Parts: sequence; C-alpha cells; structure tokens
Amino acid sequence: MQQQRLFASDNCSGVHPLILEAISKVNHGHVISYGDDTITEQLNKKFQELFGKDAFFYPLYSGTGANVSALQACLRSFEAVVCTDVAHIHVDECGAPEKFLQSKVLIVPERDGKLKIDNVKPLLHAKGFEHHVQPKVISITQSTEYGTVYSIDEIKAICDFAHHNDMYVHMDGARIANAAASLSAPLKSFTTDCGIDILSFGGTKNGMMIGEGVLVLNPDLGSNFKYIRKQAMQLSSKMRFLSAQFLAYFENDLYLKLARNANAMAKYLAEKLESINDIKITKKVEVNAVFAIIPDEIALKMLKKGFFYKWNESIHEYRLMCSWDTTKDDIDNLLSDL
Amino acid sequence: MQQQRLFASDNCSGVHPLILEAISKVNHGHVISYGDDTITEQLNKKFQELFGKDAFFYPLYSGTGANVSALQACLRSFEAVVCTDVAHIHVDECGAPEKFLQSKVLIVPERDGKLKIDNVKPLLHAKGFEHHVQPKVISITQSTEYGTVYSIDEIKAICDFAHHNDMYVHMDGARIANAAASLSAPLKSFTTDCGIDILSFGGTKNGMMIGEGVLVLNPDLGSNFKYIRKQAMQLSSKMRFLSAQFLAYFENDLYLKLARNANAMAKYLAEKLESINDIKITKKVEVNAVFAIIPDEIALKMLKKGFFYKWNESIHEYRLMCSWDTTKDDIDNLLSDL
Amino acid sequence: MQQQRLFASDNCSGVHPLILEAISKVNHGHVISYGDDTITEQLNKKFQELFGKDAFFYPLYSGTGANVSALQACLRSFEAVVCTDVAHIHVDECGAPEKFLQSKVLIVPERDGKLKIDNVKPLLHAKGFEHHVQPKVISITQSTEYGTVYSIDEIKAICDFAHHNDMYVHMDGARIANAAASLSAPLKSFTTDCGIDILSFGGTKNGMMIGEGVLVLNPDLGSNFKYIRKQAMQLSSKMRFLSAQFLAYFENDLYLKLARNANAMAKYLAEKLESINDIKITKKVEVNAVFAIIPDEIALKMLKKGFFYKWNESIHEYRLMCSWDTTKDDIDNLLSDL
Amino acid sequence: MQQQRLFASDNCSGVHPLILEAISKVNHGHVISYGDDTITEQLNKKFQELFGKDAFFYPLYSGTGANVSALQACLRSFEAVVCTDVAHIHVDECGAPEKFLQSKVLIVPERDGKLKIDNVKPLLHAKGFEHHVQPKVISITQSTEYGTVYSIDEIKAICDFAHHNDMYVHMDGARIANAAASLSAPLKSFTTDCGIDILSFGGTKNGMMIGEGVLVLNPDLGSNFKYIRKQAMQLSSKMRFLSAQFLAYFENDLYLKLARNANAMAKYLAEKLESINDIKITKKVEVNAVFAIIPDEIALKMLKKGFFYKWNESIHEYRLMCSWDTTKDDIDNLLSDL
Repeated sequence: MQQQRLFASDNCSGVHPLILEAISKVNHGHVISYGDDTITEQLNKKFQELFGKDAFFYPLYSGTGANVSALQACLRSFEAVVCTDVAHIHVDECGAPEKFLQSKVLIVPERDGKLKIDNVKPLLHAKGFEHHVQPKVISITQSTEYGTVYSIDEIKAICDFAHHNDMYVHMDGARIANAAASLSAPLKSFTTDCGIDILSFGGTKNGMMIGEGVLVLNPDLGSNFKYIRKQAMQLSSKMRFLSAQFLAYFENDLYLKLARNANAMAKYLAEKLESINDIKITKKVEVNAVFAIIPDEIALKMLKKGFFYKWNESIHEYRLMCSWDTTKDDIDNLLSDL
Repeated sequence: MQQQRLFASDNCSGVHPLILEAISKVNHGHVISYGDDTITEQLNKKFQELFGKDAFFYPLYSGTGANVSALQACLRSFEAVVCTDVAHIHVDECGAPEKFLQSKVLIVPERDGKLKIDNVKPLLHAKGFEHHVQPKVISITQSTEYGTVYSIDEIKAICDFAHHNDMYVHMDGARIANAAASLSAPLKSFTTDCGIDILSFGGTKNGMMIGEGVLVLNPDLGSNFKYIRKQAMQLSSKMRFLSAQFLAYFENDLYLKLARNANAMAKYLAEKLESINDIKITKKVEVNAVFAIIPDEIALKMLKKGFFYKWNESIHEYRLMCSWDTTKDDIDNLLSDL
Repeated sequence: MQQQRLFASDNCSGVHPLILEAISKVNHGHVISYGDDTITEQLNKKFQELFGKDAFFYPLYSGTGANVSALQACLRSFEAVVCTDVAHIHVDECGAPEKFLQSKVLIVPERDGKLKIDNVKPLLHAKGFEHHVQPKVISITQSTEYGTVYSIDEIKAICDFAHHNDMYVHMDGARIANAAASLSAPLKSFTTDCGIDILSFGGTKNGMMIGEGVLVLNPDLGSNFKYIRKQAMQLSSKMRFLSAQFLAYFENDLYLKLARNANAMAKYLAEKLESINDIKITKKVEVNAVFAIIPDEIALKMLKKGFFYKWNESIHEYRLMCSWDTTKDDIDNLLSDL
Repeated sequence: MQQQRLFASDNCSGVHPLILEAISKVNHGHVISYGDDTITEQLNKKFQELFGKDAFFYPLYSGTGANVSALQACLRSFEAVVCTDVAHIHVDECGAPEKFLQSKVLIVPERDGKLKIDNVKPLLHAKGFEHHVQPKVISITQSTEYGTVYSIDEIKAICDFAHHNDMYVHMDGARIANAAASLSAPLKSFTTDCGIDILSFGGTKNGMMIGEGVLVLNPDLGSNFKYIRKQAMQLSSKMRFLSAQFLAYFENDLYLKLARNANAMAKYLAEKLESINDIKITKKVEVNAVFAIIPDEIALKMLKKGFFYKWNESIHEYRLMCSWDTTKDDIDNLLSDL
C-alpha cells in the first residue's frame, strides 16, 4: 500500500480513529436491522438539532445513491433537474440519475463553479408545454466541484427563485463540512434557513468510512422516501454501523475540525504553488481543492510524489485535493523537487 | 441497545472481531479510491483461487444491489428473469429489479423453496414472439429463502437446461456460506463447476459489516460490469474497507466456521421446537433457518424473549433465523418459559 | 391478400366504411397539430356525454400505449399494479409496462378470466413495508381476455375495495364495446358510475383503423397526463385523423352495432362447435371470443380455412375471435369440411 | 376548422389524396395483424430497393417513437447519445429518450443546425472511465431543425469518425424527403452509402397521415428490433394501413414531388420576406423552413393570417414552415397586409 498522502481526491484518505472506534463500540449484541435501532434514532435527533426539527435523516451507502434518491423524491419522469455543466450528477455518476429517474438533466453553464439564476430563467419557457420536460428541481453543489462556496445570500436567492417557480432545491453536500468551515456558519444557516428542500449529506470525503445520507428538510418530500431508498439499493441492513459513524462525526464538532484542516491545507498548498513561476491558480480556493495550471515538466515532478488528476487537458489545468489528514509536511514533500 | 441475540434475521448480528480488526489494519495512509488498490486486487486473486481463474469479483454495498447489478449484466429490457414466487428479488426488494432493469420478473411456483425446471419449460413458448418478454436468465437462491439447499446435481441440471435454451443462470448467494457448510462442498463445486454464470456473493448475514459483491463467472458478462456497478450506485469510494473485510472472512475459512455454527444452532433449535407439543417444523432445516407452525400462545411467550417474524399468517407459521454468533444458551433462553 | 375472414383476432378485420369516410371528410385545409383542433375538442365533448362531465379523453395510438400511459398516471415506481395472470398488460405487451413504468406487475389467479378481490387481499399485507412494492392500482379487462364480462356489481365491488384501500382501478377496455353490447348497459354504467378511475378505451378491434385512447375519469389523475402521453410516444401530430374516427364510431351508436354483430357471431359459432362431437366450449361466450377444446384432426381441417390460435397446448384449447364484419357464411365455411 | 394553410408546422397539413386512396384500397377482407401481411412485406422490398438490400423497415406510429426505438437498438443505459443542443430528441420529446432508454443525451453546440465532429471529440475522453457515460451513438437530423441540410461529405465524415471510435450513427429523418429534394440525390446516397447505421424515416410531415418507421441499415442492430418496437408501444395491429401509405408515398416519387414543393415555397417565402425592410433571414433556406427576425408590429399583421411560432424570444426570431400543399397564394396572402 502506498504510504504517502495523495492529492488525487479527498476520498483517498482513511477513516478518523474516533469514527472507527465508534463502529467498534456498537459492535455487540443483536440489533434490529434496516435502521429500526436506537443508534439510528439517536442520529436522527442529532440531525434535527443541527438542521431543525422538521429534518429527517436517512443514512445510505453512496454519494451517488444519495443524490439520485434525493432527486427521485422531487421528480416524476417528465420533470427535469437543472444543474451546472460541471455538476457531479451530470458528469461523474455514469448516468445513474437518468438510469434511475428516467428524467432529463438540464445543464446551464457554471460561473465559478456555481449555478446562476439568470441561466435558469430561459428554461422556464418550457413550463406547461408537453413537448418539453418540465424543470422541477434545481441542484446545487456545496461546496462546488470547483472548490468554491455559495454564500448564504446566493443560496437563499436560488431557493426563493425556485420556490417562486414551483420548483424544489436539492443540495449535493458531498463536501458540506468544508463549506460550513469555509463560511464559519452553522449547517442550518445555509440549508434549512435558506429553504433547501432536500440535501445529500456526505461525510465519506471528510474522515468517515461510509457516511452518506439524504436529509429531507421539506417534509412534503419525505412521505415515500423509505421506498425510494430501498429501490435505490441503498438500504443498509446493519445500519447501526453507518449511524454510529455519523454520531462520532458530529461529536465535539469533529466534522468541522477535519474540514478546517483540509481547507487550511488547500490554502497553504495554493500559496506555495502561486509562488512558483509559471504556475497559475485558476479558481478561488475556498475549501479543500486547488485548481492550477502547471507546466507539464513541473507537474511530472510533482506526480512522482503522488498521483493527482489533470482536469483540463487543453490548458494543462490540474486539480489537487487536500484531506482531513493532509499535513504541511505532505505538501512540502509534494513540492520538494521543484 | 438490546443485548440478547435475536432470531428475527441473521443480519441482526454484528461483525466478527477478526473482520473488524481487518478494517482497522488497512486504515492507514492514502489509497487510490474506487477499487484501484492492492487490497482489492488481492481479494480478486482470492476469489479466483476459490472459484476458478476466470472469476472476477466486484465488491459492492448491498445484497439487493448485487442481485440487480448481476441481472443487469444478463438482461436487456425485453428479456426476463425467471425465479420462484418466494425469491428475494421478487418479494423483498421493493421492485428494485423492475426499477433498474425495466425488465419483467417471471415467477414459477417454488417447491421446498426451489425452482423446478418443469415449471420453467412452459415459459419458453414465448421465445421469438415479440408480444412476450423473452426469458433470458434463471435466478436461484442458494441457500433458498426457505432454508433449503440445492444439491450440486440440481444446480447442474438447471444450468444445463438454461444454457441449452440460450439462457444464463444467476445465483443469489446472500447465504452462500451456509449452503457451502451444509453441502460440505467447496464453493466452486456448486457454482463455477455447475455452470453458474454470475453470482451475488453475500457475507453480511454471516459476520461481515458490509460484505456484498458480484462474482462474474462467465467472462462474457463482465465486459461492462464496471459501468453497471457505478450506475447501480454501488461503487464504493473507500473500497479497501470492503475488500479487507472479505479477506478476513476467507482467512482460515472463517466464513465456513461462522456458517457452520449458524447451521448447527438451527438444527438444535429445530430439535428443541419439535419436542414441544403443537409445534410443527414446516421446512427441511438445511441451513440456519427454522420455519415452524407455533400456536399463538406459545409464540407470544417466545416473542417476549426476542422478536422474530410471522411468515404465513394463515397457518401461524413463523421463521426463526440463527446467526454466526447464536449460542445454545440463546436458544435455551428463548424456550425457557414454555 | 387473403380474402376470407379470419378468426385469429378481431384486429385482422379492416375499417368500417363510415369511419374511413370520416377520415376523408376532415382531410382538407390546415389544422393546428397535436390535438389542439376543433374535431378533437368535439370528441372530448362526446366522451363527456357518454361518460360524465368530469371525463377527459386523450386519443393515442396503441392499446399497449393506452394501458401503460393510464397506469403511469396512477403509479410511482415503488408502487405496483395488480392484475390477473392472463391480463394483456402482464402477458402480451412484451414488458412495456415494466419498461416504461419501472413498476412491478403483481399477478393473481384469474377465475373465468376475472380478478377476484379475495386474491388481492393477501397482497395488502405489503402495505407500509419498504421491502415490498406497494399495491396501488388494480387493473381489470372488460371484456376479459377469456371473453367473459364483469357485471356492474362485480366492477363496483372491485372499485369500492380498491378505494377503501387507497388504490385506483384501471380498466383495459380494448373490447369495451363488446362488453357494453353484452351487458346491454350504457358505457357509463359500468365505468364512471362504478368508480373506475381511468380507462383504456379501444376501438381498433371493433372497426376503427387506429382508435385507442385514455379516458381519465378521476380528475386527480389528469393533471399531468399530457406529459405522460408525450413521453409514452403516443402523441399524434395529425390528431384530427384519430379523433374523426371516434366521432364516426359513436355516431348513431355504430360502435354498438358492430360489437353486437361480433358477439352474435361468437354465439353462433359456439353453438355450431358445441354440436360437434369431441369439441368442448371451455369459457362462457359472453362477447366475441370462443374458447374450445378441439381435437387436432378437426382443428387441422378448420385451420385450412383460416388461421386461429392454439391457446393452451396441453389441453388442445383454441381461441376463435369474431369481428365486427364476421358473417354466418364465414362461420359455416369454417366448419364446412367437418 | 380553419381553412387557410398555416405556417406553424408542416404537420398542420393533411394527407395527400393518393395516400388516402391507398388506405382505402387495402381496406377489404381480413389480414393477419402486426405486420405479418403482404403489403408490409412489399413495403420492405421497396425500402430495400431504395436503401440497399440489407435495409429492413419497421413501420411504427410516431416520430418520437421512431427516434427512441432506433436509439434503443444502439444503446445500453450506461451509453450515451450525442446530438446538438437543438436536436428534436433533446428539446422536443418531453424526455421520452431518457424515459425509455434510461440513457444520457449528451449535447454539443450546433453550427447552422449541424453537429460538428470537433465538438464531439472532447466527449471521447470519457471512454473507458466508469464514472462517465460512454458515448455510443451520434444522432444527426437530416434536414436539420434549422432547415439546413448536411452534405453527403459531411455525413460520411461523421459516420467515419463514429465508426472509427466504436460508435453508431443515427439519422433523424423526420424531413428526409426535403433533404433528398434539396440535395437532388438518391436517399441511399446520403444514408446507407455514407454509413448511417439506423434511420428514423418520417413521412407524416410530408403528406402522409401516419407515416413513421425505423429503417435498420446496419444489420447488427436489427436482431432484436421487433421486441424494441413492441416495448416502445409502437407496434400497429392493423399495420397494412400504415404500410399502404408508404407504398403510395414512394410510387412515382410522390414523396419527392411533395418535398420539392415545400422547399420551393420556402425559398419563395424567404425571398418575399427578405424584400421587406427590417426583416432578416437568419438561417440558410435549404428545405421548407424559414427562420427570420421580424419586428413585432410586422409579425402581428402576419399572425392574423395564420399562426406560426416565435422561435427565439430575445431576438424576435420566428419560424415559418411550408408544407407539401403550400401555394404561392398562401404566401402572398400571408404577406398581403404588409
């Protein structure tokens, strides 16, 4: 096994020791399966504490599973989800949304990785015409695929626009902890309080082993969610082992501490890279991602230290991700041969 | 948390300590995600050792996910899967097969929980007629939903029949270890050697935390499986934590030891129950399930000790499942008030 | 082209001259497409006259299309349709329901071709459990696939049972005219008045060229039907040519006259067959179908006169269908060599 | 009924008298249903004459049905179709492709309504990566949604590119006759001879009543097409009435004559419009569509004569379609108040 820490993705990292310990602690005796257990019940209370009393949390296995299940709660097949052209649900899920939902994913151009209301407006011309799919849910990613963070005002504006037009808003929160750390704001403030209807809450990329789930914030969307989760092949039998991870993740704000480290390391990495001739940071570094144009000869030297992805072939842009366990030493080592 | 061991399902049990330890052991450093790691590679070799060199193993999250993904490898939407009317894929997966596959599930009546070739034959009349779905894969469950076990000859006959009629055979092996223990035969002898094309290999019910996967035995079915797994929302990012569980599961035949205990406890429970007036064992006890008609007043006393399911309301039939960690004391305690 | 009239199916017949004439009559000038024309508007009024003021009619192309679209209006993917094991939607549509709906079709055994409430009741045990699909719509065929007719009381009982259990009732009316003729009752009396929620109205088998559609009787099911029809690839651009056929079909009760002839011819055929040694009529002859066990040597002589289908190989049962244009001479000719 | 000829769409027109007569002519006697008749057989021979001996034609009901069925022959759900952002399959089919195929529709920007190979190339980076859908078929529309026509060389280049990259090419030929008339080239020369794999052949917009179908040119794609057509709810029972229309459509090149008139009328209309101050023709007029920027006060006067669509709100662009029966008088009348 490779021992150095990688910058390929924040899911190359392992599990935080406290989370592993939590798994161990619930591993005794028999427990009714499929979530009908006290640990999962306790977890739901924790989520209601964090997101408001109407929230209901469904643990499940995968981030793609969370996104697709959440969208299913909002959509019939002739209705469409609107997202940016770099959204994970559009680009990186092998068409799982179309496969499961039988719905169209409508894309609008990103700006700074974000969805802009002005780009959604023209899609509303389709409303009421049977020849066109009906836009029904806007999906935004917080923090974005480009490592930027929607402000509370931006999210509120999107939710208001959507609700005004009889649409829902889904948030892909695969890196929601990093966003919370970046905003220095409570989770509730940029989700429930803004009007987000349904949220994919992800912890796997921030120190959990398997930590994904759907948080239903708009109760109208919850009535059938248990069937959707099962049909989406996301219902865990030994669910206590998922729920226990989340409880540890929230205990003493562990999730925030881990996200803060990843974000800080990205800042450190970006500063170091910027100081190198011919390297250009291409996106604002607001969470744990650094996008940079790196001349190939420099990139090659860095890649010898550990793999990371070329993002945009044509302009030699690379993506480097920091993790909850990334250290300054890791970064110094990455750049040591330059 | 309830401390007594339950007979509701074998997935009420926890994780075997050696398997939890294996998770811990691989939790260091960074590893490329999505299965491109040496642990998963090593696991595949282990599967090839057990099932033959053409086998290829894909870890995934859920048993339903494994079944549906495996069937997707065999089917286009106008083709149908044939199974018994008690098959898990038909009864217990909330229509996930129809949702994902868009294919029909054709059912035939079970006998002793098993599929009988004679019942499949009439379905072949549909072959070639565009008004009817085309039977393309037979799915059998080993051990069956009724706690019985197909003999090697029975499986071979089904595979021969299927292949002769241009069909595949899928095995739902959610309890394959219990079947292996019951048959006292190597895994390969009743799968690869019989001609099984694709297998859902399950370990969760036998001491793993999350231990499901698809084993492709017929290489023709493997070429696109990686896309199917991703679309089925079953691709784990931190896959090493799934793969490591399996390696521990196989080490020193741990899987067999656990299954043997569960099977033995079911035998012990059945004997005890049979000795009680008015209780009637209804299915052969070949693995870890006991089906019994139990008068309600007796059942009530037992249910106070721990929950188990009424299977068939009309005849007061109950199902009791033993687990890898069930003990004679648990059983004696269950029956202590009778 | 074969000139004799066939008994293979009632869709072997052609188009009634008045219906063809109606097509001709609307073939002048330009008309806004996709149903936004006065002919289609007029047709909807005709349907409201026949079925009540809340009815809304959507012409479409195919009977399978009508069934599947109608069911889509009632179902989400985790919900199931319940029908008999001989229902057209289960047996004869190549899995189009599963393909489009992603829903399970749950079957219950037919009796006289009919669905029996007692057989549906056990399926309700699944209600509320996420492991099982949720029965949501009962689909019955009027007249049935076995040429029998539900009485008004039978239909009312099914609707009451369904509504009491939060389910809808769909009627596959591919041969609804034959049922109306058999019952000597207005269309409304055994549909709207009984509580049928949605109806596939078919005329193709009774003298139309292309005459299928969905009649929404429960307005709750209509709000999105226009999108469903389009997604189901059933929205006709030059719709006036469909609508005009229906108007002629209803004018002066043409539909009833045609159905009465088909029904009468089936009675005549059944009487003739019954008088022949070794032939046994197997189903009540209530509309235009005759099912009979016919010794092979006799059947061969009849088949030389025109093709019809063997229905049940094992008991030498055949199905003979009469059409709107079948004559006594056709029948006498069919039997002339016996 | 409105008597004036409209410019809203070429499907506002009716049926050519010879085609209606052909329907009448085959309306006698009984014929085996579902396409197993001599008229449909004869039609297939006609298609082989026009498109080459490997062609096989399947009549079906709707253009959307043809497109979706044709794509289904090429695609599994993890594979994607690539088309322009103005393609009918992307914009105007209410998501029927996603509904039926469960596949992603990948879009590239149009230029003159056409797909450009250079825009497809970047999508090939996804090939082999399970996180991304796999581009498998390119779909082009001939003539295009913008009334332009691919040259033979352009089509050949697209087919070569596709085949070189293990992809198929589908042609949406809803207006293929207009393209043939525009190119003055045989149908085969810009389809079969270029390497088109599968074709949606449409005649409804050019004088047929219901005249759509799928022409399989690459025999590899045909083996299961009959099941696909049935599942797509596109199998006509009384198919002779579809097939007869096509035979009349081809007789004495009627299809070409009709298309030539529509094309000529568009040219005439464009010339007239161009001569009016402040009107600007925005797309090359190569078939029967005219796109023009028209000041609102002028447009209003024209719209009083008959409805046509605003295409692009923001620039006051309108679309005017000419039909097989459009006359110079119609056009002169349209413009008479300006």
